[in-house]
Amino acid sequence: MARRTRLNGVLESAAELFSSRGFAATSVRDIAARAEITTAGLYYHVATKEELLFRTCESAVREVVEETRRAVAAAGDPVARIKAILGVHVGYFRDRPHKLVLLNREVHHLSATPRRAIAVLERAYFDIVRQVVRDGKAMGAFKRIDTSLAAFSILSLLNGIDKWYDPAGPLGPQALLDQLGEIILTGIGGGRADV
Amino acid sequence: MARRTRLNGVLESAAELFSSRGFAATSVRDIAARAEITTAGLYYHVATKEELLFRTCESAVREVVEETRRAVAAAGDPVARIKAILGVHVGYFRDRPHKLVLLNREVHHLSATPRRAIAVLERAYFDIVRQVVRDGKAMGAFKRIDTSLAAFSILSLLNGIDKWYDPAGPLGPQALLDQLGEIILTGIGGGRADV
Repeated sequence: MARRTRLNGVLESAAELFSSRGFAATSVRDIAARAEITTAGLYYHVATKEELLFRTCESAVREVVEETRRAVAAAGDPVARIKAILGVHVGYFRDRPHKLVLLNREVHHLSATPRRAIAVLERAYFDIVRQVVRDGKAMGAFKRIDTSLAAFSILSLLNGIDKWYDPAGPLGPQALLDQLGEIILTGIGGGRADV
Repeated sequence: MARRTRLNGVLESAAELFSSRGFAATSVRDIAARAEITTAGLYYHVATKEELLFRTCESAVREVVEETRRAVAAAGDPVARIKAILGVHVGYFRDRPHKLVLLNREVHHLSATPRRAIAVLERAYFDIVRQVVRDGKAMGAFKRIDTSLAAFSILSLLNGIDKWYDPAGPLGPQALLDQLGEIILTGIGGGRADV
């Protein structure tokens, strides 16, 4: 248990430093210092700096996928499911922004095999969104827009947030969520039932 | 003139190889071979592999900015200007996909100073889009959505295209343009005049 908590502290420190300074500019020594552990102690948990990046990226996308799957399953109709997808993503960004920043900006430092593992999880996320769009079209709640285009558009909007959005700025997280919902639900989803 | 044409061939070859294989996996020798020039001849035009990446990224974003500026100036109202922005971006992707892929995926290989130069141009692109949104809101043609959120949403949708869109797939470039226009113009732009 203590070992697990110690590892979580290391991963959290790695995510914070990789996202603020970049992977290349962060050393294992920096991460150990921030996690208040010796470098030797850190190497007890992980073998390389790349493994730290992989485990933080992997946990970020896995958490988003699992939370989204649960929220979608609990939501009623396709419009509520779209709102659930947006709510999980914006909430994750509000609470753990550095993990999403990392996933979007530093993942290219991973070598081919771990990158593919991340891509598989990202594909699972896409598949959830696409199924919601497909169900919405089948029920006549959404527009006659290409299903993949609609799903990728939703993900593009969500993944774009970390490039510009400042949770401490004038647009609060709830306003961001409401306005993104307005854009997506009238642009892609409800607003018309002409399918 | 011949010198300039030769340089353009080198830059074109660099863009193609960097986008298909990645910057790290491409050598200057590969680029010279593809451009049918000697390695010494290539080094007459550019000093480093990084300079090749910078010049291709820089020309891509500069071309998009210039073409967008012209198209927006020629368009009538804010809705037509949004359509002009989408038309330039989708047309650029259709005709020069590898240059946009490069700009989105390989730009992180640049060091700080050339990256900042690219960021300045990207900011100019954002400013054009934001001004169109601002004008549309002032004229009552667009929704009461945060101006920066709307502008970044448009750019997120456009910059997301290279991650999923295959011009040779079932959704042709005109259908892509029409459906993206539908998403953006009902999600952000026209469709309501409740401002």
